[in-house]
Amino acid sequence: MKIAITGVTGSIGTQTLDVLRFLKKKNFNFELVGISAGKNKNRLIEIIKEFSPKYASLEFGEIEKFNETQIFIGKDSTIKMLEKADPDFVLVATGGSVGIKHTLKAIEIAKRIGLANKESIVCGGDMLFEYAKKYNTEIIPVDSEHSALFQLEKGDVKPSKIIITASGGALRDWPLNKLNNVTVKDVLNHPVWSMGKRITIDSATMVNKGLEVIEAYYLFNLKKENINVLINRNSHIHAIIGYPDGVMKFHYGIPDMKNPIAYSITYPDRLYEYKYPDLILEPIIFEKIDYNRYPSLKLAFDILGNQKLQIVYNAADEISVQMFLNGEIRYTEIYKSIYQAIEYFDKKRIQINNFDDIISLDNKVKEYLINLYTL
Amino acid sequence: MKIAITGVTGSIGTQTLDVLRFLKKKNFNFELVGISAGKNKNRLIEIIKEFSPKYASLEFGEIEKFNETQIFIGKDSTIKMLEKADPDFVLVATGGSVGIKHTLKAIEIAKRIGLANKESIVCGGDMLFEYAKKYNTEIIPVDSEHSALFQLEKGDVKPSKIIITASGGALRDWPLNKLNNVTVKDVLNHPVWSMGKRITIDSATMVNKGLEVIEAYYLFNLKKENINVLINRNSHIHAIIGYPDGVMKFHYGIPDMKNPIAYSITYPDRLYEYKYPDLILEPIIFEKIDYNRYPSLKLAFDILGNQKLQIVYNAADEISVQMFLNGEIRYTEIYKSIYQAIEYFDKKRIQINNFDDIISLDNKVKEYLINLYTL
Repeated sequence: MKIAITGVTGSIGTQTLDVLRFLKKKNFNFELVGISAGKNKNRLIEIIKEFSPKYASLEFGEIEKFNETQIFIGKDSTIKMLEKADPDFVLVATGGSVGIKHTLKAIEIAKRIGLANKESIVCGGDMLFEYAKKYNTEIIPVDSEHSALFQLEKGDVKPSKIIITASGGALRDWPLNKLNNVTVKDVLNHPVWSMGKRITIDSATMVNKGLEVIEAYYLFNLKKENINVLINRNSHIHAIIGYPDGVMKFHYGIPDMKNPIAYSITYPDRLYEYKYPDLILEPIIFEKIDYNRYPSLKLAFDILGNQKLQIVYNAADEISVQMFLNGEIRYTEIYKSIYQAIEYFDKKRIQINNFDDIISLDNKVKEYLINLYTL
Repeated sequence: MKIAITGVTGSIGTQTLDVLRFLKKKNFNFELVGISAGKNKNRLIEIIKEFSPKYASLEFGEIEKFNETQIFIGKDSTIKMLEKADPDFVLVATGGSVGIKHTLKAIEIAKRIGLANKESIVCGGDMLFEYAKKYNTEIIPVDSEHSALFQLEKGDVKPSKIIITASGGALRDWPLNKLNNVTVKDVLNHPVWSMGKRITIDSATMVNKGLEVIEAYYLFNLKKENINVLINRNSHIHAIIGYPDGVMKFHYGIPDMKNPIAYSITYPDRLYEYKYPDLILEPIIFEKIDYNRYPSLKLAFDILGNQKLQIVYNAADEISVQMFLNGEIRYTEIYKSIYQAIEYFDKKRIQINNFDDIISLDNKVKEYLINLYTL
């Protein structure tokens, strides 16, 4: 199978390469034919040296043909790379709303995509799935929770209920009145998952879980009241599905992103190998969500199904997290910014008719918040 | 769908009727066309009054045509009932090795059977599945653990590992040195499941779990070392499957036999309705098996795959439990009897070439143990 990876230098991209190394060692036939990066030129060159893909792309920076690898540069270079590489499978690991375009192109050219870019579903909603249907392309979720749901759902009737779990993030045990003075370092200290910066902060605020609730809503086509979130501190349970007969199925395993990544690549097989957790060592415990600690999750449920506000929610968070990382706003202002942006854009008459409208609104939201804090 | 139930007056049979009442109330089309009982004539008449099946049978006792229901009596009456009733689905709930014949006839005439009779698999082994294959009849397990495994396994690759859970039975917390003086009443006080007498005692000794390990071995075609048993005290987790990639799937729900019964009837749909457990209320805890407390389970693993000794194991337990219930032997002598019977018959040259050989050995084992204790 011919594989391409967009966002290959990021956390998901890096772990996807680990999976490909494993599959190669086991002599399974998966060939990396194309990769794209944003601005990490040095890392891209290292990957080209190791994997010799036919095509590569770099969105920001300069680079020429390297050995036998043809390299595209500039804004639309990922799109060109995908078209030339013509992969059977694309792992869309581009971070942020810029990844939506990569998802669309991947849908056009591949038979199946592994979707790690949350924005594609959160902002695209039904439009994305209609697009995939038009091109007869299978979307396999790569988020650990949605991969778990996907794995649990196969071979049975449609579940009437799903539960996705949350670790609670780095600040789950902090006193609420201390959250105002949290530092970037405090928040990046995630208890379970090793991930990129934005998603680690989004775990602490549970914006990440909010985005996942929205994703689950579209992926599994359920009503709002049948989607729940519970805390499972060590994230050994990733997701649960329930049926009207009271049966629940749990997806259990040691948290490691290589697992859902490998599943999306080798599905319907399971060719990756990993260790089992020891069931004797620890009780499995679920806790309720305290919305005072995680108001952003409540907000996600409130706007669920409203494509316009989902775009606002995501864009407002993306820029707010950036501002927090830059030391421009406080931790608690991330939620406040998102809330304020939703209030503001809820009143605006904006139609979302196509994917360009999504990018346009995404930009407007970011501009709105940047102006708000800098003026 | 036309349904027949063998062993309709027992615990599983009674709960199957509850399921049919539920399905009828919901206007699903499942028609009870045949039922069989052993000796409980009064209960049989009540059921005939309520459900008006076309055919019924009573193995021990006298009874005539009742309303429009034709009733067969005597030793082979269940077989005659099944032939006449010609059901699409048979729930084989006959207890003990006598149920094997019912399973075979059900395989011959129905498209699918729900198999609650453990002896059919434990004693029949591969022969049973070859028989089902010959008649192209689907076997859906009705044991809660095996139903759970069956439900978990669908739609994914073959698991590399299965775990079935045990509540630990009524004596799980008794000091080991007190087990010698256990009364029948002590043992019948099962902590979780409401079941028949033999299976409740078999839960305390874990012979039941031993039989289930043997069943799982044939149903899911796994090696001995890939089948495990863990204690889950409240039996909310019924079974677990694992894959080489470290993913495990758990089957969770409030323990109630109506659930696996209903699943076997309405599969691949889930038409039964039941309440969800509250995941917040309790931690899920697994404990290792102490083979000093449950030597019978160890013994089951030792003889796994040896059809002859599986027949001996089951027959020795059936008669030993009967003797314990009659006050003829002590609780701890159940294990000793089984062990002794296995030692004895292991040395005997006995070929199992057909189902008559099974019944013949089953009888020999029981005679051997009766003589041992009465002479």
